[in-house]
Amino acid sequence: MPSASLGQVQPQTLRFDTPLPLRGGSAFGPYELKVETYGQLNAAKSNAVLVCHALNASHHVAGVAKDGAIGWWDNLIGPGKPLDTDRFFVIGVNNLGSCFGSTGPMHANPATGKAWGADFPVVTVEDWVDAQARVVDHFGITQLAAVLGGSLGGMQALSWAMRHPERLRHCLAIATAPCLSAQNLAFNEVARRAIVTDPDFHGGHYYEHGVLPARGLKVARMLGHITYLSDDVMDAKFGRERRAETPLFSTQEVEFQIESYLRHQGDKFAGYFDANSYLLIQRALDYFDPAAEFGGALAPAFAQARCKFLVASFTTDWRFSPARSREIVQALLDNNLDVSYAEIDAPHGHDAFLLEDPRYHQLLRHRFNHIAREVRA
Amino acid sequence: MPSASLGQVQPQTLRFDTPLPLRGGSAFGPYELKVETYGQLNAAKSNAVLVCHALNASHHVAGVAKDGAIGWWDNLIGPGKPLDTDRFFVIGVNNLGSCFGSTGPMHANPATGKAWGADFPVVTVEDWVDAQARVVDHFGITQLAAVLGGSLGGMQALSWAMRHPERLRHCLAIATAPCLSAQNLAFNEVARRAIVTDPDFHGGHYYEHGVLPARGLKVARMLGHITYLSDDVMDAKFGRERRAETPLFSTQEVEFQIESYLRHQGDKFAGYFDANSYLLIQRALDYFDPAAEFGGALAPAFAQARCKFLVASFTTDWRFSPARSREIVQALLDNNLDVSYAEIDAPHGHDAFLLEDPRYHQLLRHRFNHIAREVRA
Repeated sequence: MPSASLGQVQPQTLRFDTPLPLRGGSAFGPYELKVETYGQLNAAKSNAVLVCHALNASHHVAGVAKDGAIGWWDNLIGPGKPLDTDRFFVIGVNNLGSCFGSTGPMHANPATGKAWGADFPVVTVEDWVDAQARVVDHFGITQLAAVLGGSLGGMQALSWAMRHPERLRHCLAIATAPCLSAQNLAFNEVARRAIVTDPDFHGGHYYEHGVLPARGLKVARMLGHITYLSDDVMDAKFGRERRAETPLFSTQEVEFQIESYLRHQGDKFAGYFDANSYLLIQRALDYFDPAAEFGGALAPAFAQARCKFLVASFTTDWRFSPARSREIVQALLDNNLDVSYAEIDAPHGHDAFLLEDPRYHQLLRHRFNHIAREVRA
Repeated sequence: MPSASLGQVQPQTLRFDTPLPLRGGSAFGPYELKVETYGQLNAAKSNAVLVCHALNASHHVAGVAKDGAIGWWDNLIGPGKPLDTDRFFVIGVNNLGSCFGSTGPMHANPATGKAWGADFPVVTVEDWVDAQARVVDHFGITQLAAVLGGSLGGMQALSWAMRHPERLRHCLAIATAPCLSAQNLAFNEVARRAIVTDPDFHGGHYYEHGVLPARGLKVARMLGHITYLSDDVMDAKFGRERRAETPLFSTQEVEFQIESYLRHQGDKFAGYFDANSYLLIQRALDYFDPAAEFGGALAPAFAQARCKFLVASFTTDWRFSPARSREIVQALLDNNLDVSYAEIDAPHGHDAFLLEDPRYHQLLRHRFNHIAREVRA
């Protein structure tokens, strides 16, 4: 069967009146979450797959939005695609604190009537997972067929297996890590300093000043972008290619194509992403560390897990390297859990999890075929 | 013989009245260069070693300056040290455009009477090498026993072998590369954007405004610092160690020790380094690419070289990885040149070239012993 696009998709807004207890200590709410679903939930409500998003993505996972935007994982999800919406009911949720319609720092703090700004509570992977569980409740689903995520989304998938072990049958954690390394934390800190020291940041209350810390956000995104790509793919795509034929001998003009590309990425991002959301989501990455409460041992963190796991990494991913995925696999094996691991030889670095690598997509297609057979059985 | 410090050292200022032709097309001068020398030049003037500095270093290579500052390569250079000042006459030159006393963007442009700022001409590795050759002339030295440099300093050492082949007997190029990769260029661009988009940069003319683009310079340095360290050494030194025992759940406070360390590095750097110098020196890195005029082939760039080479790299250096050093070695071998290559298993990343790794220092000690025997012969 040939694969096809989902075509036009519609988001919905779910309102939750009961405040959500946060790891930071407070409880947050009422709040709204923006959600998209694709495919049909079967009568047994056993064919649902939750897709968790990474830093800059949203509930708009697949299909075409009203404004023409294609979902960020559209190559993977749709009729006849590896995650086949003819068989599965797929749920995408924009996480709390993000900037695509769910309650976030740009919305009004009921206590002040002004935008939350930097006063929006710090949310964690665990908080997001608990909020997603309420979305799953909303659809009347007791147990998900699978939770799938890449990068920060993969951390959410892992957290599902720990926090709600009876509520998922499969966990698919792609290009992720059990926590950030010191180097990962360091890059995040540089990005954060670029944003918060931008004079237009105004301590996170820039909405009231009618400005945006765009300079800082651009620098943050340019930096992030470098860590998403492998050194090799950057050399292959840009190398030392110049914009002009002869050198300009300038410290401020664009000399090399890679500079132009990065500036473009920064400008584009600063045009649609909220700086406070960026800080919040980076911090969720920083704080994720399920081994911490077990003195750094990861295996005990999975002691409650019951689902089957697929862990996949990409050889050229230096942000979340294969070694980090192997730490996860080892912890799962230490718990005698059912885990498959694939280390995919792909040149694209961390970004590979969003791309259409044939071996990678074949891997996910097989796994979802397997899950679909379980659903029918 | 036990090694000792050089003790107190004194810089000298050399003035050059004849303008220096620059790769950018103009000629620059008159200008001054700050220089330090250690040890005694022998009667035959055959025992001189030029040490080229990297991004943030200077002419103050070894010994103790008046203000108590210890030279940046003091662990390597001094009486009885691997580069033994009892046998060699060592020359350190602060490069043109830097900010430690040589003519740079903070000095007056004679055409305007105001600080050069961003109008200071872009200087290249080749320009620096030609300026250093004039310093060597000043001391009446026809041929250097060796030129030694690490990182950007290694590029200068390589350039000496290409541009002034009869004027050095040995080239020691440590932790360097034949040009920046796309990823190297990309990191430099992010740092540059952080600086030039700081509102206090004022298009490079901040001196006139009585401000400094310290925010941008801090971010640039923090980023640079990450690329100098290996992932492993960062994990070993900082890991995910927190500053406070319990999480703060804050996007703006220091949560992890690595954040505090990086902020400290950024603050320290912004307190002494000039932003325009930073931009200039980064651009010198960007522009160095001797293979460019041979259609990307490195071997022809060394066609004129006559000296002997020692090339050394460090296994965990991901800024200028061993693979980049091997490119240099291959190009030298293609020219039937005398080259030794050492790939040193050291955990410290790019920074290793400044540290006192025993195998590394032993390697340099042996090489300089060998060079000293030639000097006597």
